[in-house]
Amino acid sequence: MNKNRLEAFSDGVLAIIITIMVLELKVPHGSSVAALIPLIPVLMSYLLSFIYVGIYWNNHHHMMMLVKKVNGKALWANLHLLFWLSLFPFATAWMGENHYESWPVIIYGFVALMASIAYFILERILVKLHGPDSAIAHAYGADIKGKISTVIYILAIAGSFISSWIGVAGYILVAVVWFIPDTRVEKTLQKQELE
Amino acid sequence: MNKNRLEAFSDGVLAIIITIMVLELKVPHGSSVAALIPLIPVLMSYLLSFIYVGIYWNNHHHMMMLVKKVNGKALWANLHLLFWLSLFPFATAWMGENHYESWPVIIYGFVALMASIAYFILERILVKLHGPDSAIAHAYGADIKGKISTVIYILAIAGSFISSWIGVAGYILVAVVWFIPDTRVEKTLQKQELE
Amino acid sequence: MNKNRLEAFSDGVLAIIITIMVLELKVPHGSSVAALIPLIPVLMSYLLSFIYVGIYWNNHHHMMMLVKKVNGKALWANLHLLFWLSLFPFATAWMGENHYESWPVIIYGFVALMASIAYFILERILVKLHGPDSAIAHAYGADIKGKISTVIYILAIAGSFISSWIGVAGYILVAVVWFIPDTRVEKTLQKQELE
Amino acid sequence: MNKNRLEAFSDGVLAIIITIMVLELKVPHGSSVAALIPLIPVLMSYLLSFIYVGIYWNNHHHMMMLVKKVNGKALWANLHLLFWLSLFPFATAWMGENHYESWPVIIYGFVALMASIAYFILERILVKLHGPDSAIAHAYGADIKGKISTVIYILAIAGSFISSWIGVAGYILVAVVWFIPDTRVEKTLQKQELE
Repeated sequence: MNKNRLEAFSDGVLAIIITIMVLELKVPHGSSVAALIPLIPVLMSYLLSFIYVGIYWNNHHHMMMLVKKVNGKALWANLHLLFWLSLFPFATAWMGENHYESWPVIIYGFVALMASIAYFILERILVKLHGPDSAIAHAYGADIKGKISTVIYILAIAGSFISSWIGVAGYILVAVVWFIPDTRVEKTLQKQELE
Repeated sequence: MNKNRLEAFSDGVLAIIITIMVLELKVPHGSSVAALIPLIPVLMSYLLSFIYVGIYWNNHHHMMMLVKKVNGKALWANLHLLFWLSLFPFATAWMGENHYESWPVIIYGFVALMASIAYFILERILVKLHGPDSAIAHAYGADIKGKISTVIYILAIAGSFISSWIGVAGYILVAVVWFIPDTRVEKTLQKQELE
Repeated sequence: MNKNRLEAFSDGVLAIIITIMVLELKVPHGSSVAALIPLIPVLMSYLLSFIYVGIYWNNHHHMMMLVKKVNGKALWANLHLLFWLSLFPFATAWMGENHYESWPVIIYGFVALMASIAYFILERILVKLHGPDSAIAHAYGADIKGKISTVIYILAIAGSFISSWIGVAGYILVAVVWFIPDTRVEKTLQKQELE
Repeated sequence: MNKNRLEAFSDGVLAIIITIMVLELKVPHGSSVAALIPLIPVLMSYLLSFIYVGIYWNNHHHMMMLVKKVNGKALWANLHLLFWLSLFPFATAWMGENHYESWPVIIYGFVALMASIAYFILERILVKLHGPDSAIAHAYGADIKGKISTVIYILAIAGSFISSWIGVAGYILVAVVWFIPDTRVEKTLQKQELE
């Protein structure tokens, strides 16, 4: 089964998610610069989610480069990932409009956590499909980086019950960890070319 | 005539439909967790439709793998299918916001039924275009699975006049039936490779 | 210069236009079947525009099959076409929500007329680029069909000042004329294969 | 690393940006032609932004034709560009709805300036990646045209503090400068073919 349409569909959904989030930046009624001030938390929230979705697109792009085939399970695991990512516009707007109060921050973290778990499931299905000696299996290994971010998310969500800024700090930390593109994939691809 | 742009356009429309449905998850004004409770039926409704559109994308993907050519009729049959699918965001939101009352559930079922009939028409046009000995004709045959889901939809819609939960149960049943990717296509493709 | 990205971008914009129009079908507050009745004119308006955009996609698809190259002029002529098509969601909603009163029908016709002129300009630029002996020049010739629809649009707009139903009838007539895929293109492609 | 998905994703995001801007053209309640008059500044603002996004798509398309490979840095530089472009719908609507008052015009210019800087960064990263003797390095050189538009943006923003029409005039001037597709790229491509 061909991976091209999976990539095309995912690109489409990710492109729409990243763009419709901006619709939550509601145009203010006044025309003074002061009218923009209440939008700053919404904009910050949008920026964080833009980076998150950008990271997912980036990593998805990298992972798919190592993928030779997909099956029905992988298609559904991919849709499962897209489902959680599709809740980002909602969680982003709720968090931004409520100035990072506890519950919106917790729910944002929950959506981010579920998306990361969905990504992990997709990765494992693809690794299993390609076998233990495949390039994708070597590139991801035990996926320490994925597991670390899951732990940070859980700690950040728990911390949000004390102060929502602990949660926000945790989410920024995960974004920083993943900001650097997945060199594991690039290294694997370079090794393949050398052989 | 080339099938690539048909696939690309369908992927685009399906990606947009699946994503804009989430815009009906209106951001609540309060920031308490209680503010999320009224959203639960809308979220459930969104989840069901996400799975439905996912199934259509999946099956469309599979069917197109067996397609060698398309004609003007097939292009319009495909647009007809996309038309009914484009009504899903509306039907989903109406059903979710009205807590699964009778008429919204009936209309949801009607849209789902029309989409399934539109899919069946597209399938028949493509089968006819490729001839009775084609891979696509062998893969779909009399399409018992398609006919069964049409019957379930009609029963579910009729049952909604008694209790809307009969309708919802019927729609979930169809989703479960189709959740498993179309092995008829995968078997046909494998057979082709063996020959 | 390559035509692939022009097609991909146009497909994307057309897919979004055709889908966001449905967002104007505002979810009613009540859950009775009566709550749907005010939506019927909006739905009819949506259906007409869906067919229009479907026709444009279809014809664009056909025309691009004969295109070997594009230049800067063609890129802008294509964007010009997309600009007018992007006004369809607005014109559709205004016409549907105002029950086909004169001015909304006139403006709808004006947008449709401008889109048809934009399509004609794009076609002429592509014909000129490929030369008088090219397949595209033979397929379109003097484009009688295009000119007839322009005349129908002008008459329909003029008629809308008397009764908006003359306008609507004219728009439906153009849709019927174009509903049949462009056999000129298919004939040209078949001739090419025979040679 | 492959440039195809970068192009596909950028096309998707640009197609959505250019199309959702039209959602800010809110459907008026009345059905008289007078009801359209307040929409004229919004429509003008939409037209300007449509041309801007069209120019970016056009130039992106041209630049990518000279690109042989992309790296992680280029992916992020591209996302950075898309981020600023995604703020166009907001800036466009705010400017149009406030009849080109000073602050909305300044913010519009700021978004346009940041997008142009983001484009410049992406261009420099791609030039550096391909080396000083590459086609892309020759095509862009010191990018005088890019630097001139940055200067015009800054002057236009500064001028908006005196009169917002200076700003608008500046933005139109940049659009005119870029309206002509990048002949530098076409010349480079022609030279490559001759060699």
